[in-house]
Amino acid sequence: MKNLLFIVALLPCLLYAQSNFEPTDGHPNPDEKEKIIAATKTFSKAYMNGDFETIANSYTVDAKIFPNNTDIIAGRAAIKKQWLLGAGTKILHHEIIPQEITFLGDYAHDYGYFEGKSENKDGSIANWRGKYVVVWKKEDGNWKMYLDIWNRIRD
Amino acid sequence: MKNLLFIVALLPCLLYAQSNFEPTDGHPNPDEKEKIIAATKTFSKAYMNGDFETIANSYTVDAKIFPNNTDIIAGRAAIKKQWLLGAGTKILHHEIIPQEITFLGDYAHDYGYFEGKSENKDGSIANWRGKYVVVWKKEDGNWKMYLDIWNRIRD
Repeated sequence: MKNLLFIVALLPCLLYAQSNFEPTDGHPNPDEKEKIIAATKTFSKAYMNGDFETIANSYTVDAKIFPNNTDIIAGRAAIKKQWLLGAGTKILHHEIIPQEITFLGDYAHDYGYFEGKSENKDGSIANWRGKYVVVWKKEDGNWKMYLDIWNRIRD
Repeated sequence: MKNLLFIVALLPCLLYAQSNFEPTDGHPNPDEKEKIIAATKTFSKAYMNGDFETIANSYTVDAKIFPNNTDIIAGRAAIKKQWLLGAGTKILHHEIIPQEITFLGDYAHDYGYFEGKSENKDGSIANWRGKYVVVWKKEDGNWKMYLDIWNRIRD
């Protein structure tokens, strides 16, 4: 009887350990994966719409971004300011194409490609592609970017 | 008595959950943090020595790197080939300066700065600084880079 009680008592522990120790690429967290993919689509839409408030809210309060040719930019307010620097460029298309999302409790790391098309002030059109690594963190139940770094792919 | 047994049985579970659920910036994993810092120093030394075997072994077998102006490069063999492209440049100095290392079980994410000095084939000297995000993964008990992405800072 004591042994049985012991096993029963340990059972949630073992299940818990299993669910948290094994990094999961989407499975068995399909809902969480969908939520992150939805967050990337929200970001792209906001970027195309010039909605810098939504862009800023895609990041945790303590997020860090790593744009080319600058120092690390830390904090949601500074990140918003950084994205606002590009406000003069019209984003005609933006898409994020994750290759793998690995969940580790309230964090996930994600890497993949992005592509876009923009119209400069002089009317010229640019097509660009790049790659990224993002560390996501759950903030108040929502997946937000904690670390966001990217660079370009030569066309 | 049954209650006591129940609590005793759950105790390792609670301690285990505590140790794995709380992401830790070095604490209470000072040894693990030291191991990662040692791995960055090993990488820098190998880079300065042109030791491409050690560079390749700084990565997991399934690692991905994200150099500027290329697609994602996957796998240790392809990564070694990529680093070998720079074999003509003499690396006089290389240092990695982590800003934060967060441990999540057998993974850790790390971001920071790097700096270096190199001598090109024509004898000209270049100083450069950049920033990076690395996702580390334990492979056979050793911390190795699983994702490695970086870009430059304008001087």
